Amino acid sequence: MDEIRVIEVKRSVFDNNDRDADRLRSELRERGTFLLNLMSSPGSGKTTTLERTIEALADELRIAVMEADIDSDVDTRRVLAKGVRAIQLHTGGMCHLDADMCRQGIRELGTDEVDLAFLENVGNLVCPAEFDTGASANAMILSVPEGDDKPLKYPLMFKVCDVVLVNKTDVMPYFDFDLQKLRENVALRNPNAQVIPICAKTGEGMEAWYEWLRAQVAAWKQSA
Amino acid sequence: MDEIRVIEVKRSVFDNNDRDADRLRSELRERGTFLLNLMSSPGSGKTTTLERTIEALADELRIAVMEADIDSDVDTRRVLAKGVRAIQLHTGGMCHLDADMCRQGIRELGTDEVDLAFLENVGNLVCPAEFDTGASANAMILSVPEGDDKPLKYPLMFKVCDVVLVNKTDVMPYFDFDLQKLRENVALRNPNAQVIPICAKTGEGMEAWYEWLRAQVAAWKQSA
Repeated sequence: MDEIRVIEVKRSVFDNNDRDADRLRSELRERGTFLLNLMSSPGSGKTTTLERTIEALADELRIAVMEADIDSDVDTRRVLAKGVRAIQLHTGGMCHLDADMCRQGIRELGTDEVDLAFLENVGNLVCPAEFDTGASANAMILSVPEGDDKPLKYPLMFKVCDVVLVNKTDVMPYFDFDLQKLRENVALRNPNAQVIPICAKTGEGMEAWYEWLRAQVAAWKQSA
Repeated sequence: MDEIRVIEVKRSVFDNNDRDADRLRSELRERGTFLLNLMSSPGSGKTTTLERTIEALADELRIAVMEADIDSDVDTRRVLAKGVRAIQLHTGGMCHLDADMCRQGIRELGTDEVDLAFLENVGNLVCPAEFDTGASANAMILSVPEGDDKPLKYPLMFKVCDVVLVNKTDVMPYFDFDLQKLRENVALRNPNAQVIPICAKTGEGMEAWYEWLRAQVAAWKQSA
């Protein structure tokens, strides 16, 4: 477990991130690799969700993971323990990843025989939403303790995400969290976003998330 | 309640933020106003902590609040309901406040007869830590659901804070959160940071936080 691969990703030299992101997306499509950019606040449960997702889907999809953090490699160790290919990206203090930083990660990770790659972005509801990473789709996790008003305060994050996972539903009774209100607040920002309540810890609701992933990966491969 | 003052703060024109921050800090010291920069992830309980703090201290200290958000004014409405002066700062999509943006807010808020001013920063554990706002001190809230490993992943935030409030201790039994481990992780980043466990919802542990605030304000006024 000591041979964690840590990549110090450098700030992009490209001045047109959107164009670079589109290029990366096309390359991934040709290779048949669906890349999901997974975003959230710190501590919303991104890594736990990934661990459980790998357990559930590793027999049917070939999965690889890039863990981005400003520092530490604790998440990569957790994901490696699940038996999939994983690398750690260090952003050198940067609060987000752009397409070129993502490309540096993809190059190190490799996409040979990878159906589904995850980019676990830096924990932050603001900056990561501003940069297209070149991923095939964007997902975010909002955990119940964070509150149902977050789409009002962090509009762009909700606008750019294709799916919003509402995690930690097991602690719903202990927080003032109104799922219907959250759905309305998400719809204000992004009427097309799917909202899927899950509990990565207990497994409740995860099947709907797996179904979403399966459908996305299948459609991506068909469009190649 | 409809006359919420919303200030659209502009990106700073100063290229030396640290010097500008020092200047603002000096000005605030001369006026006898202690400004606390309160940071955290989205949904950690900044506003609830402020509400309860105002209730507890409004009889002994003259308090005013600046609420910074990318969008919305829900927090300012909550604070105004507590009967103190408060304004909303909108950052125009920016993920943090710098010293000049803080100064724009202070100008609108006014510091006449204000002993203790709060800047509730944008919910983000990354970028706000990089910019000295000119505040007298920095505080952060880490809520129990976020996990005890956060100082490992967001080192700068813990390094720049004088006090770390560990909020939502009432839900400790439902999460894998080790307070001793958190203390050790904070000490790795900042051995001088005080760690105060609180529950803003129930009031538990808040007295230690009030004591810290009282001591800070008194020392600030003495140093003027």
